[in-house]
Amino acid sequence: MKDKRNLLETFINSFPDRNYLITHQADEFTSVCPKTGQPDFGKITISYIASKKCIELKSLKLYLQSFRNDGIFYENVINGILDDLVSVLKPKWMEVKGIFTVRGGIYSTVISVHGKKPE
Amino acid sequence: MKDKRNLLETFINSFPDRNYLITHQADEFTSVCPKTGQPDFGKITISYIASKKCIELKSLKLYLQSFRNDGIFYENVINGILDDLVSVLKPKWMEVKGIFTVRGGIYSTVISVHGKKPE
Amino acid sequence: MKDKRNLLETFINSFPDRNYLITHQADEFTSVCPKTGQPDFGKITISYIASKKCIELKSLKLYLQSFRNDGIFYENVINGILDDLVSVLKPKWMEVKGIFTVRGGIYSTVISVHGKKPE
Amino acid sequence: MKDKRNLLETFINSFPDRNYLITHQADEFTSVCPKTGQPDFGKITISYIASKKCIELKSLKLYLQSFRNDGIFYENVINGILDDLVSVLKPKWMEVKGIFTVRGGIYSTVISVHGKKPE
Amino acid sequence: MKDKRNLLETFINSFPDRNYLITHQADEFTSVCPKTGQPDFGKITISYIASKKCIELKSLKLYLQSFRNDGIFYENVINGILDDLVSVLKPKWMEVKGIFTVRGGIYSTVISVHGKKPE
Amino acid sequence: MKDKRNLLETFINSFPDRNYLITHQADEFTSVCPKTGQPDFGKITISYIASKKCIELKSLKLYLQSFRNDGIFYENVINGILDDLVSVLKPKWMEVKGIFTVRGGIYSTVISVHGKKPE
Amino acid sequence: MKDKRNLLETFINSFPDRNYLITHQADEFTSVCPKTGQPDFGKITISYIASKKCIELKSLKLYLQSFRNDGIFYENVINGILDDLVSVLKPKWMEVKGIFTVRGGIYSTVISVHGKKPE
Amino acid sequence: MKDKRNLLETFINSFPDRNYLITHQADEFTSVCPKTGQPDFGKITISYIASKKCIELKSLKLYLQSFRNDGIFYENVINGILDDLVSVLKPKWMEVKGIFTVRGGIYSTVISVHGKKPE
Amino acid sequence: MKDKRNLLETFINSFPDRNYLITHQADEFTSVCPKTGQPDFGKITISYIASKKCIELKSLKLYLQSFRNDGIFYENVINGILDDLVSVLKPKWMEVKGIFTVRGGIYSTVISVHGKKPE
Amino acid sequence: MKDKRNLLETFINSFPDRNYLITHQADEFTSVCPKTGQPDFGKITISYIASKKCIELKSLKLYLQSFRNDGIFYENVINGILDDLVSVLKPKWMEVKGIFTVRGGIYSTVISVHGKKPE
Repeated sequence: MKDKRNLLETFINSFPDRNYLITHQADEFTSVCPKTGQPDFGKITISYIASKKCIELKSLKLYLQSFRNDGIFYENVINGILDDLVSVLKPKWMEVKGIFTVRGGIYSTVISVHGKKPE
Repeated sequence: MKDKRNLLETFINSFPDRNYLITHQADEFTSVCPKTGQPDFGKITISYIASKKCIELKSLKLYLQSFRNDGIFYENVINGILDDLVSVLKPKWMEVKGIFTVRGGIYSTVISVHGKKPE
Repeated sequence: MKDKRNLLETFINSFPDRNYLITHQADEFTSVCPKTGQPDFGKITISYIASKKCIELKSLKLYLQSFRNDGIFYENVINGILDDLVSVLKPKWMEVKGIFTVRGGIYSTVISVHGKKPE
Repeated sequence: MKDKRNLLETFINSFPDRNYLITHQADEFTSVCPKTGQPDFGKITISYIASKKCIELKSLKLYLQSFRNDGIFYENVINGILDDLVSVLKPKWMEVKGIFTVRGGIYSTVISVHGKKPE
Repeated sequence: MKDKRNLLETFINSFPDRNYLITHQADEFTSVCPKTGQPDFGKITISYIASKKCIELKSLKLYLQSFRNDGIFYENVINGILDDLVSVLKPKWMEVKGIFTVRGGIYSTVISVHGKKPE
Repeated sequence: MKDKRNLLETFINSFPDRNYLITHQADEFTSVCPKTGQPDFGKITISYIASKKCIELKSLKLYLQSFRNDGIFYENVINGILDDLVSVLKPKWMEVKGIFTVRGGIYSTVISVHGKKPE
Repeated sequence: MKDKRNLLETFINSFPDRNYLITHQADEFTSVCPKTGQPDFGKITISYIASKKCIELKSLKLYLQSFRNDGIFYENVINGILDDLVSVLKPKWMEVKGIFTVRGGIYSTVISVHGKKPE
Repeated sequence: MKDKRNLLETFINSFPDRNYLITHQADEFTSVCPKTGQPDFGKITISYIASKKCIELKSLKLYLQSFRNDGIFYENVINGILDDLVSVLKPKWMEVKGIFTVRGGIYSTVISVHGKKPE
Repeated sequence: MKDKRNLLETFINSFPDRNYLITHQADEFTSVCPKTGQPDFGKITISYIASKKCIELKSLKLYLQSFRNDGIFYENVINGILDDLVSVLKPKWMEVKGIFTVRGGIYSTVISVHGKKPE
Repeated sequence: MKDKRNLLETFINSFPDRNYLITHQADEFTSVCPKTGQPDFGKITISYIASKKCIELKSLKLYLQSFRNDGIFYENVINGILDDLVSVLKPKWMEVKGIFTVRGGIYSTVISVHGKKPE
């Protein structure tokens, strides 16, 4: 998944001394189930407190779209996104949450966190 | 963004010893994306506890309208408004929150705070 | 605003040793903007724990109606009502909240408190 | 109001060692405004944890109906009901709440409590 | 019920040639059951197209309050109000509807109409 | 079911020339399933346009309560009530509807009508 | 009320041959009761199909504000607004509706129409 | 599916000359997909106007349960139920509707009717 | 407004013989009030049945954005959009509706139609 | 798009003489915008009255998934699905509706119909 990181663009955080909260919720995430080959759908919510860099929104959109035809487990989607964004942004704190649509009558959610949230 | 501050008018807080809460929610904020040149839309909520001055509402409206054709990131909108209002009002505490409309299937929110809220 | 206080009538609180909660919500408050001369509208909610006196409801209605043609900022409406009622009732605790209708796309709320709420 | 108490009938609480919650909500309370002579309407909610006695429901209905033509302030309605029920039932804890219909554009609520609610 | 009619005041309909619709909904009607002596409660809705006179609102309120201690069946409440208002107003068309609160587990509604509604 | 009819009391319709609508909804109907002996519960709604007589509400309550320990199919409950009320009231039009609570995962409704509704 | 008409400004309807629907809903209407001197509040909805002229929105706001301290019955408010707008605009069709806030427990609505709505 | 019909029991319709409406809604229907072997779930609603017979409710429950391990398309479930019930009851009119839970992201509904509904 | 039309791009309707319904709802429309110079906001809904051409969505977005700094009445916005789209698409039928945000306490809606909707 | 049709499997309609309604709603449709290359998302609802064949649900799912990486306008998605299903099923009547997620602030809907719905 390292190549995906090249899709992520950043801009300078002009207020690095202030711990302010940024949230991006992507409602149209889709990937493919590695077991059945069937498409998966879900909502991905990314929350973070920036250090020196912020994520540029259009590049985030393209990054998330890059999963479209990947065969990947829910758990790896969420933790992979967290790893990629942490690697590129070095945030003070970040949480990635995925709420996936029903499959075989089962609804799934995965939440993963990096660092400790400043008060 | 310093010039925008001239748009902000204040009036004397007649009750400076009382820590009371003032909230202004502006539902019609619009600016321009610095990356794509496309218009952005959002709701800006400003909450504060005044010290010696209060913000005059019509001047706040004109100040927020001044962003209409600016190319600016969400993060800079919210922190810029916070900086300008803190500079003019010197409040005891202030929070600025922006909830922006969906772009490329992504909903974004930015929240920034100045000072510690008195109990 | 001192003259308005004459409009406020009270009756003896027959249960002064009990800390019970009284709330009056006035949905039809209107005054005039001191900046533009345009009418303002809002909902005023008064909550208190009485000491020796309670506010009589019809006099409260007439008192709130007395703002109808006053040019006055939201912040002064709320704190002025709080001051007048505290002066007349000497309550153990009181909160006055105003939720004002949209002006120039902006919704405003002001909340002010007197004393500490007994448990 | 002492005579009203004769209307209240009780029955033995067969489970005095158990702290269980009883609630009666009366939606059709009406009395008369002592200031204007106009009828008032409201909903009265009585919650309590019984000690040795419980209130009999039909007698409670007749008791509440006895206010129908009384001229009485909201605050005295609620505290009077609380006093009468506390006198007759000696509950471990009781709360009486009145939500009254709009008068002159004002909605009023009064809440009064006896004792401390057992955990 | 003829004496009640004296409570009803009217004012001149300044627009008698226009068939416009007037509706008054009274949420706080109460009377007494002629069978059991228990209080009844309901909502009365009066809709009409005026001829030469309109009903004055405060007098309508006092008229409806005059049923407070009357023992009377629902059916007679609704038709009696219709008869009284038709007698005093001579409207082109009128409908009176009563929605009564639950009694013995039964909810009752009565609707009565005078004349034919002009298009 | 003829004996049940003795429970039904009527009063004179004072407005026999007017076709007005009367509705009684009984939310607490209960009878017994003739097949399983299990209790059934439902809501019975009776709507009619009276001729010379109206049904008295307390007697209707007692009549409906008389089904409490009867073993009877839903279909016969509804049509039996319709037959009894038509026999006693001779209404211009009547509809009886029953909405029964879930049994074995199945919700049932029965609706039956007598006569044609006058316009 | 003729003088109020001078407040109403119009602009040329650039599409007079097209029957298109214009609706303005004013949520902050207030006037004074001619009987009691108490303030009244309501929502006024104006719908029309223009002929040669359209109503300018700011002038409509000022026109509606001009009722603020007038003592006037609901029925005359609605029909007076209809007459004034019809006089100034000569619309093909117009409807004016007022929904007024509760007074003495009574909610009132008045609807008046000029002309026949083109299909 | 003919054998299933033996599960259906009926009782005599005591009111065959009256066209009254009977509705049974079964919320817990389950069968098996003939293509994938996966369980299907749905709500079945049966509405009819009886001729000489009514369906007995407990037998209907057992009949619907008999589909539990059948591999059968939705369309055949609904039309099969309709055929079986029509065969046993000979109703004047009947409608069977099935609302099935999501499968592969697809929600399905099937509605089938026998005869013409009497007015 | 003729120049705006150049922004509109179309693509061939591959199904010209079929009368199918296309709807585009734009929630982020903004222009400027020609009277006050203040920004206006609204939702524009365009429904049509195509003849030989369909509107391309991105060009429609850019076309609607071109109003951003125009001073123009609501009525002319809606009818101007209708004229431009009709000129470019020659649809069999088209409706344009605008719901504008509150200004001075007034909510406005304008609806305009071209042609007669095929059944 | 003809090749897609091979994905569609059918089964024999066992009730061809009966006009019953079948509806499939697919909430997870996705394709690609032919103009921008960006992914599109929507809900597709297919309603029909079968002639000799019914669509098999799993094959419908795979058919809809086959659009995943196609660059195609909304209008052609809906009419293409309609054409394919009509070609394979020869239904008596069919409607296909697509509700697509917001793009550039614009929500789009397309509805297309084949044949006339039997009563």
